[in-house]
Amino acid sequence: MTDATARRRGRPRRTESGAPGDTRDRILAAAREQFSEHGYEKTSVRGIAKAAGVDPALVHHYFGTKEQVFQAAVETVFAPALRAPDVVFDGPADEVGERFARFLFGVWENPVTRTPLLAVLRSAVNNEVAAAVFRRLVTSQLLRRVAGRLDQPDAELRAELAAAQLVGVAMMRYVIKLEPLASADMDVIVARVAPVVQRHLTHP
Amino acid sequence: MTDATARRRGRPRRTESGAPGDTRDRILAAAREQFSEHGYEKTSVRGIAKAAGVDPALVHHYFGTKEQVFQAAVETVFAPALRAPDVVFDGPADEVGERFARFLFGVWENPVTRTPLLAVLRSAVNNEVAAAVFRRLVTSQLLRRVAGRLDQPDAELRAELAAAQLVGVAMMRYVIKLEPLASADMDVIVARVAPVVQRHLTHP
Repeated sequence: MTDATARRRGRPRRTESGAPGDTRDRILAAAREQFSEHGYEKTSVRGIAKAAGVDPALVHHYFGTKEQVFQAAVETVFAPALRAPDVVFDGPADEVGERFARFLFGVWENPVTRTPLLAVLRSAVNNEVAAAVFRRLVTSQLLRRVAGRLDQPDAELRAELAAAQLVGVAMMRYVIKLEPLASADMDVIVARVAPVVQRHLTHP
Repeated sequence: MTDATARRRGRPRRTESGAPGDTRDRILAAAREQFSEHGYEKTSVRGIAKAAGVDPALVHHYFGTKEQVFQAAVETVFAPALRAPDVVFDGPADEVGERFARFLFGVWENPVTRTPLLAVLRSAVNNEVAAAVFRRLVTSQLLRRVAGRLDQPDAELRAELAAAQLVGVAMMRYVIKLEPLASADMDVIVARVAPVVQRHLTHP
């Protein structure tokens, strides 16, 4: 590839500050912020580029289409989920439900991880393309990896039903804010939800 | 109130067709359609009035603010929920979980009831005012009435955790469309979920 074609495809120019890695990170941070604030539908590659202070061609160069930028942004949001199987299955087998519940609620309890997760969920509920990205990532990064540790023929359905209980509680507690669930002590909720998650994952 | 003040507050004029009840219904149908299509934030009283072919003042006359129109529209969506306590508690006590699961999934399985429900959920996830309306109605029309039939001190929390399992499954099956959950036979799902709902509602 000559310098001229590289330029056309949006490779970073010398006038843009910092190493390519920095520029990529800056675009990704801007993408997260834009998707978080405006949702998938109302965010544009042009808007992300503007927020990052770069040319739109550079966004395409590093990430591709808007869907692909969204996927890269959501991947960073899902990064903590990569630890889930190790956390959930490291310990007594009859406490798998409790560890899964505490792990996922831990992500929701912390505003630093909750805010981008909530933004992704909003986009997924509102837009079919964003839902597909969410679906792919939640399946590959979390559910299939939890299911892989279960010695059950219908392990994937089990992992999904367990996650459905936890996501349902998170929705009603943190998004809809139903009382008394929204103000209930986390230990009270875990005490009620852990046996259910345990049942979904391991009950014959 | 004189005719003049009634006119200013938007009472129907003779030139508008049909009885007042018809006009109110037409506005409500237009409101449901507008909220469903555009979500709470992007819907305006003016847009609802236009879709219904009436003056915006008439929308205010019958329903009040945009929030109140939304509440009236959501009430019609929640109307089937009013039957829930009778359906859920009419039968053997150890099948309460199964009847609650079948009742709520029945609403989601039917596109006629699913479409407006999904629209309301989308608005609630995206907007704080819409979430408050959703919260008030789901609490008063469904959860408090189910809880009222449970002989338990923490009946409301129990009803919410049971509903969280069912809403979580509905979200993942009908909105995010996770596989294998999205294609699983309803009886398979009910067989797994009913004991969990039963446990939330009745387990000591």
